[in-house]
Amino acid sequence: MKITYQGEIREFADGMNALDMAGEIDKELKKAALAARVNGEVAELVKPVPDGATVEFLTGSDADGLRVLRHTASHVLAQAVKAVRPEAKLAIGPAIDNGFYYDFDVATPFTNEDLAAIEKEMTRIIKKNERLERFELPRAEALELMKDEPYKVELINDLPEDATISFYRQGDFTDLCAGPHLPSTGKVKAVKLTSIAGAYWRGSEKNKMLQRIYGTAFATKEELDAYVAEREEALKRDHNKLGRDLEYFTTVDVVGQGLPIMLPKGARVIQLLQRWVEDTEQKKGYLLTKTPLMAKRDLYRISGHWDHYLDGMFVMGDPNDETKECFALRPMTCPFQYQVYLNRQRSYRELPMRLGETSTLFRNEDSGEMHGLIRVRQFTISEGHLILRPDQLEEEFKGCLELAKYMLDTVGMLENCTFRFSQWDPANPKNKYEGTPEQWHEAQEIMGRILDHLGVKYTIGIDEAAFYGPKLDIQYKNVFGKEDTIVTIQIDMLLAERFGMEYVDADGQKKHPYIIHRTSLGCYERTLAYLIEKYAGALPTWMAPEQVRVLSVTDRAADYANALVAKLSELGYRAEADITGEKIGKKIRLAQMDKVPYMLVVGDRDMAENTVSVRHRAEGDLGAMSFDSFAALLKDVVDSKAKK
Amino acid sequence: MKITYQGEIREFADGMNALDMAGEIDKELKKAALAARVNGEVAELVKPVPDGATVEFLTGSDADGLRVLRHTASHVLAQAVKAVRPEAKLAIGPAIDNGFYYDFDVATPFTNEDLAAIEKEMTRIIKKNERLERFELPRAEALELMKDEPYKVELINDLPEDATISFYRQGDFTDLCAGPHLPSTGKVKAVKLTSIAGAYWRGSEKNKMLQRIYGTAFATKEELDAYVAEREEALKRDHNKLGRDLEYFTTVDVVGQGLPIMLPKGARVIQLLQRWVEDTEQKKGYLLTKTPLMAKRDLYRISGHWDHYLDGMFVMGDPNDETKECFALRPMTCPFQYQVYLNRQRSYRELPMRLGETSTLFRNEDSGEMHGLIRVRQFTISEGHLILRPDQLEEEFKGCLELAKYMLDTVGMLENCTFRFSQWDPANPKNKYEGTPEQWHEAQEIMGRILDHLGVKYTIGIDEAAFYGPKLDIQYKNVFGKEDTIVTIQIDMLLAERFGMEYVDADGQKKHPYIIHRTSLGCYERTLAYLIEKYAGALPTWMAPEQVRVLSVTDRAADYANALVAKLSELGYRAEADITGEKIGKKIRLAQMDKVPYMLVVGDRDMAENTVSVRHRAEGDLGAMSFDSFAALLKDVVDSKAKK
Repeated sequence: MKITYQGEIREFADGMNALDMAGEIDKELKKAALAARVNGEVAELVKPVPDGATVEFLTGSDADGLRVLRHTASHVLAQAVKAVRPEAKLAIGPAIDNGFYYDFDVATPFTNEDLAAIEKEMTRIIKKNERLERFELPRAEALELMKDEPYKVELINDLPEDATISFYRQGDFTDLCAGPHLPSTGKVKAVKLTSIAGAYWRGSEKNKMLQRIYGTAFATKEELDAYVAEREEALKRDHNKLGRDLEYFTTVDVVGQGLPIMLPKGARVIQLLQRWVEDTEQKKGYLLTKTPLMAKRDLYRISGHWDHYLDGMFVMGDPNDETKECFALRPMTCPFQYQVYLNRQRSYRELPMRLGETSTLFRNEDSGEMHGLIRVRQFTISEGHLILRPDQLEEEFKGCLELAKYMLDTVGMLENCTFRFSQWDPANPKNKYEGTPEQWHEAQEIMGRILDHLGVKYTIGIDEAAFYGPKLDIQYKNVFGKEDTIVTIQIDMLLAERFGMEYVDADGQKKHPYIIHRTSLGCYERTLAYLIEKYAGALPTWMAPEQVRVLSVTDRAADYANALVAKLSELGYRAEADITGEKIGKKIRLAQMDKVPYMLVVGDRDMAENTVSVRHRAEGDLGAMSFDSFAALLKDVVDSKAKK
Repeated sequence: MKITYQGEIREFADGMNALDMAGEIDKELKKAALAARVNGEVAELVKPVPDGATVEFLTGSDADGLRVLRHTASHVLAQAVKAVRPEAKLAIGPAIDNGFYYDFDVATPFTNEDLAAIEKEMTRIIKKNERLERFELPRAEALELMKDEPYKVELINDLPEDATISFYRQGDFTDLCAGPHLPSTGKVKAVKLTSIAGAYWRGSEKNKMLQRIYGTAFATKEELDAYVAEREEALKRDHNKLGRDLEYFTTVDVVGQGLPIMLPKGARVIQLLQRWVEDTEQKKGYLLTKTPLMAKRDLYRISGHWDHYLDGMFVMGDPNDETKECFALRPMTCPFQYQVYLNRQRSYRELPMRLGETSTLFRNEDSGEMHGLIRVRQFTISEGHLILRPDQLEEEFKGCLELAKYMLDTVGMLENCTFRFSQWDPANPKNKYEGTPEQWHEAQEIMGRILDHLGVKYTIGIDEAAFYGPKLDIQYKNVFGKEDTIVTIQIDMLLAERFGMEYVDADGQKKHPYIIHRTSLGCYERTLAYLIEKYAGALPTWMAPEQVRVLSVTDRAADYANALVAKLSELGYRAEADITGEKIGKKIRLAQMDKVPYMLVVGDRDMAENTVSVRHRAEGDLGAMSFDSFAALLKDVVDSKAKK
């Protein structure tokens, strides 16, 4: 038969599978191959390839290849658990980003000893290089085969009437599974179990809490080692540990999860960032607003939040009791800031109207979902809405994008950003999205044109739009490789009409404006988290909560140190003195641990010569200099917002 | 008999009443007298004075005298209403600050025509100079007399068993009343009805809504005229009108009452004040915090808010359902900011710890109670807590007081302030106050000693303390003469123990610190309201949202005007250009109406000579000068925070 491989047509024996083809091409390829892509679809190596197909081979350097490997690794995990804890009932075990997991119903939680035993058993199974065999069964036989696995029974019963029910068998272990898988367990060259967590069956609190084992797997030992090393480095930077250790923030049980308490250092950085954003926006012609953090349900009915977002909102009182006033905390700023526009009749001459606000928002999420400064119930965002005539849309969109890029670049985060054009899902228009298909088509076409015109390189995210319009999402990849939306610029052609927002155009006609919803730096709490992780706690001098620490070498230099702190404070810098009786070496170590950018070490000679001996936390000793020289150096670093 | 009058003993006929005594002393005094103070108690003039008493005469320049006059005026009002609307049932009619009111149950609301007719009838009753006669009745006869007045019947039935039931009769009108009153209606020389409002019987929503007529009365026509003129002037300054007209804020029905929306001008002023307060506090050694706006009920249980303040809090979810997490918005910052202190073990060396926060708070109050920026459901306050060793209490209390005085003085409000030492009510200790009588005694003694030591002149307010300790309240009298607490400094010896706040003292012992709760400028929304009223909208230049407006005389000067705005913005000032085609006279009027402090009028000559023609909104034309001269003038006014 004829097969296309790397753009060329090759001849193979009829009915040959991809694994054997790889062997004919190159023995090393056969070893490295984990799965194939046949006519664009990921397929198992052992499946016969149809005549005329196009074939690629997926290895460990390929995301889809790794996914297949990790899926097989999760079966190996389940098999090993059955050996170590025979009472375990199997739930589900998918591959995920960076690894895999499997959920088990066990009599008592797994211990660390269990985990070690399970990992050992997995290595044994991998060494045995068991073949994975796929087979299908009719429903009745499938249920009979799985009769001792209640979760599998539930899964089979939930399958549609006409579904194919397939299984994979490796040695004495069989699992309900759609595949695809590796040809044999031996191709899982490197595996590691990473953690245990509780997880509700099917993700619902109403169900039983199961035990989830997380792990990761690679095609080579070297790749696993590199991943583990990178992970350890990232963990050292984890804001949820480092941010607490450095006293940027804390959380407290009696206050609640997802409600971080910003300690003085964290509060200071957020204050600095907030003022910088507000001032920059003021220069760009933004008008500052300050709108209430709650409103009656009536407002959310107009905005659509009551229909689309009620579950995510904190409601005060009974939302269904219409006889009483019912307030809810705001999950977004839009309907509030529109009231500023609605304050009086507007003319086309007043547009563009750019409204900015340092806005606190609230999201009612499960306690279990909360994480440090990143998944929170309350956060503060550099929010804004631009109210526009149609002819102003592109220019103002460009302004929003440039502002966001300038902000992200200045704090050092832009280099880890990509762009996503988030669109609606035409297949799911009824429940999630407002507006007609025609309106969505128009809005997305306009936005696409603007993005192409501005030369923005973007991916497309289907079903990622806001309920009122398409978005440009700026995606940030953090030190763990996880991607999150940090900034978003949205075009909205629906809400102005719902809120009765109009302007009198040059022709005397009343028209509905366009609205851009946007942030410039995103949420301050989350930005702080990313900055702590990016800089491993050593924030650039301009935003560091403590910029300079003056360290006295002996008690004799205490007054001199205090005077220097006073001079620096007078100049508007954040400086502290360490005039304790500790040895200078210890004082320097403390300042380094606290990640203070500049240390001024002052002793007898400095006092005599009226100098300061400057140290930078990363650059080390910068030598002795006059105070004025240091002040000039510091001014340069701070005013230029240098990344050091 | 012997009577002491003005420090001298005088002889009068036995059983003489105060009115006749006044006549013997001075005919004018008899005319002017409204009531007497006999042995320190306010008494009617017609009551016989006991032998040996000390007597003063109260006139219209005396608050207690005016109160008696206005109480009689309320009876005159009720008599007049019975003449104009005979179906009216009488509720209650007391004297209040600045006047009196009476509540009526009427078939249809009063109209403006009713009010005019009632006022005319009142004048007739006053001219008739009817005598007011007091008499007492046993309960059964009292009920019989009032049988057609259901509200009076209810009042009589609620009187204690042994109460004296007294009435006052004037002409054909009789009212249940304890007095005291004027001798006759003719002494109400000047009366005016001011407004109508709805009011629930006994102030409860569960009862019937009655019609309340407000009025005021004076002993002379001149005093009434002066009051009316002053009132009209104050109304022009009313922030709830002027603040909306000048576009500082608005409110919107669908958002809710008591939730003001700060428009760009209001938001800018609050931003400026907030930054000034934060920066000033930073210089005074305060550490900034940013704590969550809500917490689980668990936190409020510790703080005591759950027991003492639940009705005033916004609760999310059912407060009585212990099976679910229940959050509430914070009414105060204290329990949140304490968590910053509690973050780790503290040493005596770390004290005083001064924590400051720009804090948003929430109070769940009735919609009917809301008023502009003053009675609101959400507000932002310059909050702070100082955590102290006992030896630091006086010095730090002094620092708080000086800081508040500096702030209030700088914005121009200190001159309208007085001080109140707010204490608990020993008669009401169980429900309202935490702690033992001994603890209260100690806290109040310490605070009294500090106040006396600092030479603070204060009044004492019984039952005005916080539930955890005594306060120094700074009371501000607004343009309507109404007094409110704007700043408070509180000593708290209870909550540190409840929260387990400790420090390790020099002797190695763990001890509970003292806490001072304090604000420096108070609530920003309320401060803005008072500033708008105080300055009639013309805020001092340093805090004015728009500081300079550049007005082009002709189109030729438009570029020059824009360039000047750019230069001013570059220097950090808030400037706008008016380069429309309007006449310069109209542009100046517009800028005056917008209360912009400085206008730069620029025309051909200014362009030729490179000058600006400066106008100040209050000082008028300041002549032509170079831009640099104007910039120097402006810098002076702004940097010195001049009150112009």
